[in-house]
Amino acid sequence: MSSPRVSVIGLGAMGLPMAGHLAAAFPVTAFDVDADRRAAAVERGAAEAASPAAAAADADVLLLAVRDQQQVEAALFGPDGAASTLPEGAAVVLTSTVGPQAARDTAARLPHHRLVDAPVSGGPTRAGAGDLLIVVGADDEALEIARPVLDRLSSTCTVIGPRPGDGQALKAINQLLAGVHIAAAAEAVALARGIGLDPALVVETLSRGAASSFMLSDRGPRMVEAYGDGAEVRSRLDIFVKDMGIVGELARETGVPTPLAAAAHQLYLLGERAGLAAEDDSAVVTVLSPQR
Amino acid sequence: MSSPRVSVIGLGAMGLPMAGHLAAAFPVTAFDVDADRRAAAVERGAAEAASPAAAAADADVLLLAVRDQQQVEAALFGPDGAASTLPEGAAVVLTSTVGPQAARDTAARLPHHRLVDAPVSGGPTRAGAGDLLIVVGADDEALEIARPVLDRLSSTCTVIGPRPGDGQALKAINQLLAGVHIAAAAEAVALARGIGLDPALVVETLSRGAASSFMLSDRGPRMVEAYGDGAEVRSRLDIFVKDMGIVGELARETGVPTPLAAAAHQLYLLGERAGLAAEDDSAVVTVLSPQR
Repeated sequence: MSSPRVSVIGLGAMGLPMAGHLAAAFPVTAFDVDADRRAAAVERGAAEAASPAAAAADADVLLLAVRDQQQVEAALFGPDGAASTLPEGAAVVLTSTVGPQAARDTAARLPHHRLVDAPVSGGPTRAGAGDLLIVVGADDEALEIARPVLDRLSSTCTVIGPRPGDGQALKAINQLLAGVHIAAAAEAVALARGIGLDPALVVETLSRGAASSFMLSDRGPRMVEAYGDGAEVRSRLDIFVKDMGIVGELARETGVPTPLAAAAHQLYLLGERAGLAAEDDSAVVTVLSPQR
Repeated sequence: MSSPRVSVIGLGAMGLPMAGHLAAAFPVTAFDVDADRRAAAVERGAAEAASPAAAAADADVLLLAVRDQQQVEAALFGPDGAASTLPEGAAVVLTSTVGPQAARDTAARLPHHRLVDAPVSGGPTRAGAGDLLIVVGADDEALEIARPVLDRLSSTCTVIGPRPGDGQALKAINQLLAGVHIAAAAEAVALARGIGLDPALVVETLSRGAASSFMLSDRGPRMVEAYGDGAEVRSRLDIFVKDMGIVGELARETGVPTPLAAAAHQLYLLGERAGLAAEDDSAVVTVLSPQR
């Protein structure tokens, strides 16, 4: 199966560019609850469907790119859900970050399909360029069906284990580190401002040494430049409210203390409470140091 | 003054390689309370002195590489202290991490000398190769005297401000990030073990993406490989007990909340309490996940 028929459900910040990039290689049928998003997918070369069930009806690979587990359940098992029409043996590629337990539950409810637990990391630009990091939990048979789609979307695709949930677990650890590093960068920028050092010089200097992180180099300048002033939203703050919640759940289940992740989660909750849910996650710095 | 006479006080993990690297370029007189360390400095080309006062007697630049502010005060103002003999107008280069207030206090007690607040970052190997990051708070006159010594020791030397204390403040922010990133790597490794994922594969995979940090790549493999089993000590855990304490003090003084730095400080304190003070700082992972 070199050219699978692909169904994409969820055409948001990640799903739309993924659908477009897939449509340049494979026949793609796309669905989103929002008609404007469906039209945007058609512009990018996909066919549009009127419901998840219609989108899935003759797919080899169903790719889910919705926001959270509630939307996963609606797309698969709700009215006109995709599970009712998806051909037996087809692969369901779950790219959303929903946590290991939700991925296992979803797999159990799809006995006639093959779940590929495949959360992605990278952001919209890389999603549209096939340059994502995908971390996968799936057995060999499921992988074989989904492989052309995973390869088309990713520059790095790491199979971390054979079980649905393994990919989610690794993604959760990714989010633990990413969420803590953003919060640490925010503390560094806020403290630099509090002391009266030039925060731009601090970020630039420290990005070159033992204090460096991807997030310090990426979010640090945004925290300095667009301080509390409506930075372009590249990744919403409330994504980390959700994802650090998944980290906390996983930590409790396994009995592993994660005090820094817990503190970071609280910081994102404070950001949400301060009205920053739909702002760029770099706006979390304003929780620590609100004044201009 | 192209070839200053240099005095080095404190010949520990950082001071000894710095003294050796300086001695290959300048006349260096060295002192440490430990005779074995003095002998090691002589092997590296320095002359040895019997006291701080003797070491400082004809120096243009006095370099302090002791552990903490208590040792700084003993070296400068204790019995046979260096301040009593150091020629008027000489520069005192403070490379220890002691916090901004301690650096300002020290400057105030040296009215006839020029304090160059110059904490270093990089570790022993880079100290011996002139490859340190040095962050400086000093005025132009002090800098002019100390410049040959700073240039000899560093690959990057950033002057962050004109006041003693500015270098310490930047170093504290460096330590905030470094200490939080090590603790986050420990949470990631402990959680990977708790879930049953291969921690080496987790560290390797996540080091390539948005979760990456210098510390994840550097300390992560040490946490995985030498788990609780006496890893080679490259940087002692109790350094972060001290330095995160300085961060906390600075945060309180400026009124900036730093919840992640505070959580990391607690983790290093737990490590110290568990008997890990003199272990490699990567051993902090065993606080979160003690079993082999």
